[in-house]
Amino acid sequence: MGSPIASIVSVGISKFGVREGLYTRELFAEAAREAFDRCPNLNPKRDVQGLFVGMMSESYEHQAHVAPLFLDWIGLLPIPAFRTEGACASSSVALRVALFSIASGMYDVVLVGGVEKMTHLSTTGVTEILAMASDFPFEQWHGISFPGIFGMMAVDHMHRYGTTEEQLAKVAVKNHEHGVLNPKAHFQKRIRVEDVLSSTPVAWPLKLYDCCPRSDGAACLVITSPKVARKFTDTPVDIVGSGQAQDTLGLFERDNFSGMKVTRLAAQQAYKMANVKPEDIDVAEVHDCFTIAEIMAYEDLGFCGPGEGGKLIDEGVTQLGGKIPVNTSGGLKAKGHPVGATGAAQACEIYLQLTNQADRRQVSGAEVGLTENVGGSASTGVVHIYRRGD
Amino acid sequence: MGSPIASIVSVGISKFGVREGLYTRELFAEAAREAFDRCPNLNPKRDVQGLFVGMMSESYEHQAHVAPLFLDWIGLLPIPAFRTEGACASSSVALRVALFSIASGMYDVVLVGGVEKMTHLSTTGVTEILAMASDFPFEQWHGISFPGIFGMMAVDHMHRYGTTEEQLAKVAVKNHEHGVLNPKAHFQKRIRVEDVLSSTPVAWPLKLYDCCPRSDGAACLVITSPKVARKFTDTPVDIVGSGQAQDTLGLFERDNFSGMKVTRLAAQQAYKMANVKPEDIDVAEVHDCFTIAEIMAYEDLGFCGPGEGGKLIDEGVTQLGGKIPVNTSGGLKAKGHPVGATGAAQACEIYLQLTNQADRRQVSGAEVGLTENVGGSASTGVVHIYRRGD
Repeated sequence: MGSPIASIVSVGISKFGVREGLYTRELFAEAAREAFDRCPNLNPKRDVQGLFVGMMSESYEHQAHVAPLFLDWIGLLPIPAFRTEGACASSSVALRVALFSIASGMYDVVLVGGVEKMTHLSTTGVTEILAMASDFPFEQWHGISFPGIFGMMAVDHMHRYGTTEEQLAKVAVKNHEHGVLNPKAHFQKRIRVEDVLSSTPVAWPLKLYDCCPRSDGAACLVITSPKVARKFTDTPVDIVGSGQAQDTLGLFERDNFSGMKVTRLAAQQAYKMANVKPEDIDVAEVHDCFTIAEIMAYEDLGFCGPGEGGKLIDEGVTQLGGKIPVNTSGGLKAKGHPVGATGAAQACEIYLQLTNQADRRQVSGAEVGLTENVGGSASTGVVHIYRRGD
Repeated sequence: MGSPIASIVSVGISKFGVREGLYTRELFAEAAREAFDRCPNLNPKRDVQGLFVGMMSESYEHQAHVAPLFLDWIGLLPIPAFRTEGACASSSVALRVALFSIASGMYDVVLVGGVEKMTHLSTTGVTEILAMASDFPFEQWHGISFPGIFGMMAVDHMHRYGTTEEQLAKVAVKNHEHGVLNPKAHFQKRIRVEDVLSSTPVAWPLKLYDCCPRSDGAACLVITSPKVARKFTDTPVDIVGSGQAQDTLGLFERDNFSGMKVTRLAAQQAYKMANVKPEDIDVAEVHDCFTIAEIMAYEDLGFCGPGEGGKLIDEGVTQLGGKIPVNTSGGLKAKGHPVGATGAAQACEIYLQLTNQADRRQVSGAEVGLTENVGGSASTGVVHIYRRGD
């Protein structure tokens, strides 16, 4: 297996959901505090050398320039602080940038995080803000927003491969099953296939329960150079692979809608760097903003062949107890999708799984994990691979 | 002198000013095209491995997720693309992140850029968007925006050190003199001290001509690892120092308003890394969003002692022909301030100076240059130091 780029020595996640009355800065501090508390050997003021934070939009709180703001609220001024934006992959991009800083030898210990506060706005308001991650003159202007975009992908996938509405629904059912086991999840409630199928149509074939909610939440990771990780914990998790790719912002510029080229390319890079194969993955968190996205992720990550994603969910391969449990956290669908927080939260879940801290949703003996996070219409794709420290 | 972190092998700058009818993506492509054209040995599609772009706000064009968008428009899909946001220092932050990527050994050739399109909105609209870089509940909500914030800084500086309105005005006059020599500048027109003093009051003691304009523009740099720079050019410029620091978002949390702690801290880091002293700097671009900011920058960068900034401008030390010419490009005041582009444009000007391509505004024999870029109320500060390649 590849040599580690960096090691995760602690993580923290705020409660996801409707967090009324809190500002983004407070949510971020809640996650950072948990990450610091989990790691008694870390003295944040002495040890942390940089902050890398992903947040999608200034529009939710009329607040840009959040990197110094969050740094102030967690008491770490005046170290350098960086905000990245890559739509719903904002904090996976932050993690990659943080990896550069560690691999450069310039920093040994940094905090990586992500956050978004969305539920104080209406669904319409949130949909409009999210739509900024698609093309303004060629998509938004014509009224296209993400449910429609992923609806088109689902139609193409159904047409090409025979994927069914029931198979899409089963993704939501599985992730809600997992969410019940995660006390930080936005939804901790079982649903049935018929609940999904009979829920309000949003953009055919996607119904309300095929769509992740808008959520408030934050997640943080403390990452270090591999050589200093053991100063902070006996159970580090190494990041051994990292890949990122980009595609056109607009769907109209693509050859087909039935898969995510960015995920395929990012996965190739990450698998190669980590020197692992899809069959080596014990547990994965993937980007299920809509149920179709998880089906496509299975295929694009090589968990199955093209067009076989529906079969994979039918066979239960990706549920807890299956061969590759996917979205044990509940995923975006049940854990929630505060967009800037999502990439960091995925990495947090894998850390918990690989350090045997995932409680009722623990994948027994998990050693190698993967996260896949996409932004916009899969115009940004980021894949990371993790291994339990030796 | 310190060893190079990376080398600049080409730069490109769009015309700054009112660029009616263009989208941000087109401005960005204009700058990238010039950077590619200036470097015939570079094959962008073959050589460039990543894009790092700074842009402040999604609100000007209702367009976030610009990293893949710009990448598409310059024909470089599917390589990784990163957007950073650090208010008016967004592209200096992008440059720092790009330096991490080069120093990590992961990439050898990357494109760094910045852009903003602002003039299609009213001054009020722009002021409101820029205000997002200050604290929402504690500043924006109460009607404070940046002219007021820098006005308060100016008042404090005048009270503490006896700095005069005439001295502030002289900064504007000098930078307009320089702008006349820069065909890319927004304003290429001389002004007199009395023009500044009699211009419309904005936030006392700042008048209209103490304030930089809102502008459209983009700037790009091709940076490489030092070991490959000579493949692309015979005249690389090495980046030998880099520093960044953060301060509170709100002025109300600070001890005093008469200087910029972030600039002092970032400069300390950069000088130390580069192993140079302020007196070694031959030419500098500093952040003159308001005239008072340039006066403070002189002091915080060590070009003079605390409180002596007014004297420095009186003595002509920082004008072309003086000992340390500052803002030979025209600065934010005359070249213009498309906020996301500013940091990258500062680096472009230093590249042109150190490679003897600055035409009528050339500082003869310049070997060592510096850029200083701040975000918000100097809540982010970034300093870079450059040296002509051997």
